[in-house]
Amino acid sequence: MPSNIEETVHQMGRQARTASYRLAQLSTEQKNEILRAMAASIRAKSAKLIEANALDLQAGQEKGLSKAMLDRLKLDQTRIEAMAAGIDQVATLPDPVGQVLDTWDRPNGIQIEQVRVPIGTIGIIYESRPNVTADAAVLCFKTGNATILRGGSEAIHSNRAIAEALQTGGANAGLPDHAVQLIPFTDRESVAALAGMDQWLDLIIPRGGKGLIEAVVSMARMPVIKHYDGICHLFADKDADQEMAVALTVNSKTHKPGVCNALETLLVHQSIAADFLPKVAAALLEKGVELRGCSRTLEILPDLVPAVEEDWDTEYLDLILSAKVVDSLEQAVAHINHHGSHHTDVIVTANQATAEAFMRSVDSACVFHNVSTRFNDGGEFGFGAEIGISTDKLHARGPMGLRELTSYQYRVRGNGQVKS
Amino acid sequence: MPSNIEETVHQMGRQARTASYRLAQLSTEQKNEILRAMAASIRAKSAKLIEANALDLQAGQEKGLSKAMLDRLKLDQTRIEAMAAGIDQVATLPDPVGQVLDTWDRPNGIQIEQVRVPIGTIGIIYESRPNVTADAAVLCFKTGNATILRGGSEAIHSNRAIAEALQTGGANAGLPDHAVQLIPFTDRESVAALAGMDQWLDLIIPRGGKGLIEAVVSMARMPVIKHYDGICHLFADKDADQEMAVALTVNSKTHKPGVCNALETLLVHQSIAADFLPKVAAALLEKGVELRGCSRTLEILPDLVPAVEEDWDTEYLDLILSAKVVDSLEQAVAHINHHGSHHTDVIVTANQATAEAFMRSVDSACVFHNVSTRFNDGGEFGFGAEIGISTDKLHARGPMGLRELTSYQYRVRGNGQVKS
Repeated sequence: MPSNIEETVHQMGRQARTASYRLAQLSTEQKNEILRAMAASIRAKSAKLIEANALDLQAGQEKGLSKAMLDRLKLDQTRIEAMAAGIDQVATLPDPVGQVLDTWDRPNGIQIEQVRVPIGTIGIIYESRPNVTADAAVLCFKTGNATILRGGSEAIHSNRAIAEALQTGGANAGLPDHAVQLIPFTDRESVAALAGMDQWLDLIIPRGGKGLIEAVVSMARMPVIKHYDGICHLFADKDADQEMAVALTVNSKTHKPGVCNALETLLVHQSIAADFLPKVAAALLEKGVELRGCSRTLEILPDLVPAVEEDWDTEYLDLILSAKVVDSLEQAVAHINHHGSHHTDVIVTANQATAEAFMRSVDSACVFHNVSTRFNDGGEFGFGAEIGISTDKLHARGPMGLRELTSYQYRVRGNGQVKS
Repeated sequence: MPSNIEETVHQMGRQARTASYRLAQLSTEQKNEILRAMAASIRAKSAKLIEANALDLQAGQEKGLSKAMLDRLKLDQTRIEAMAAGIDQVATLPDPVGQVLDTWDRPNGIQIEQVRVPIGTIGIIYESRPNVTADAAVLCFKTGNATILRGGSEAIHSNRAIAEALQTGGANAGLPDHAVQLIPFTDRESVAALAGMDQWLDLIIPRGGKGLIEAVVSMARMPVIKHYDGICHLFADKDADQEMAVALTVNSKTHKPGVCNALETLLVHQSIAADFLPKVAAALLEKGVELRGCSRTLEILPDLVPAVEEDWDTEYLDLILSAKVVDSLEQAVAHINHHGSHHTDVIVTANQATAEAFMRSVDSACVFHNVSTRFNDGGEFGFGAEIGISTDKLHARGPMGLRELTSYQYRVRGNGQVKS
């Protein structure tokens, strides 16, 4: 007999599937009007949101959450306005649904059209930040998908209030019932129920730490789009403009060290190491970065902390950078393909051929030539909005915008063709 | 401690990953030359293949395999030549790898290019037919992917001989080591080992019955592209050309009843039912089809077998067809979305607006207007080759050709841009 939690989640799944068929029929104009109504509702209910959030903050303090965690949890007028403005902005983005991707005729006269359609139903499993409730729901809605949200226990009151504001605001403008649903449970069992119901759910996107993603991957029967670590590299080639290489290293490492597109390992061609490493080390030191070096780096900079094997596989998310001297482009590529997380890797070089060889050989979602790692981002790519940065190779790779929240369908028109 | 099987499979995974980096660097010309060498090797070793196949056939007879199973297992000169010709044909197909999918510039001067690249490493798990060994391996190879094959025990000798022929023939023309590997075990444990190693394997494609696919789905940590059942529908609308509707029903049902794109349920608009049902029933009877009807169908054709609820959810794969009278287009669509398997669904109508509404509302990989269900096929779509027909909505939906065996990568070129 299914438990109460499983039964509820499956019921939500059935409802989401029904809603998805109605969502697929909405015009872009109808969806945008609903989005603007959702944004207005978030603004109108800001006092209620702050009230609900206060319950989460109080519970968090009692549970002894860190100051950083409490800050991530917090909703204030500014953050609520940013949430609402984000929704209004999604209303202005082009709608990928209905776009004809390809069309061709066959010799027998049938006409084949490949058209973008919504995926259908999407589950989002996320941790503390309550704004994900709105961000994820509206991106899925804009692309005609029904959403089932499952947030963390820390933000449950805030999440409920946000979901309620989206639902009631949207409903006034024609949002189909059950298009946006929030699972009322925060038990682990509700994740298992969601991950098991592949008859109702087409996709799960976990947004959170590695532990959460791993748990979802091991349970899920439907596709999971993963946003794993970014162990990002910058390779300062022998033909690098060294000043540029210093600037890109510093920016990639220090601009926002706690995110997945921050730099974690610097690779330096041996022929410039003696010249380049002291310069980059000085610039990094000035920004408070702890540099850890391989044995050849230490020959040049003996005062550094020695890097151990584990360093090459670590996403520090902190002001720490490992540095390694390599013999060649090939060695740099081999290191990146072996130790990296296939997220974002950069070459700095003035040699075009070397740059192209690097980009063709590195097996990562984003390979950059003379650009900071920080540009692997939906906003920087011009997507207007981003659901995350996928480390998967199937369906969505790299920054995921609205396009990546769609599927396609073949529509074929004929006049009675039979197969002989 | 990992078992011998797990250790071997993981070792093959590591080797496949290394091979994938070398494969990604091969030019289209190099790959085509290797393919032709593989085809030549299959032809040259046909006697060995037939010899190995005889061992499988003998074991199959001893195990009491059905005549149909033994026939699927059998390799003869004609089938071996077809296999080799298939490989030669793949060599002639356009190579999707390297294709620029999109390119744009950002206001800060960075240039973004989205380029097709191989997926990397692909596991193929399949059942009895030995020709899958060659078909799957060469399609994956053409798109620059390393393949790990795991065939069924019934065909193990044949599979080994085919894999060996591909490997040795390919190696002479420059095929990287471990680009095509066959797991030497047929234990269930080897499937589990394959499905668990997401660090080495980017994708699994199970080719076989529902039981096999379900087992892989429940174990796999990496994406699985599924080829589930086809519960395909044809809706004879009130504005249907009835003669065409009869012809398409008969062709969709009887042309090859044992395949996933065969018709399983006929939906008939109430306003033509009394006229149309007797005509289509007579034509189906002539082809030996057992027609099962809903209560309203039975009012018109009282001699039919009554359809029970289960019929609407059954893929007969046989000369059986269920028929249901519906009130409207909406009811037809609702039936299809609820009972269908989102594979191939057809409307027959002379009314363009009705056809478009049907195609926009049916949530299936392929929606056809006045075309036999049998045209959901990579060959009929002009893909030149097909790895299967995906019932998934992520990455690949419907017929899967070479394009669907690729991923993409963003290559970004700048001149020192940092994020401020």
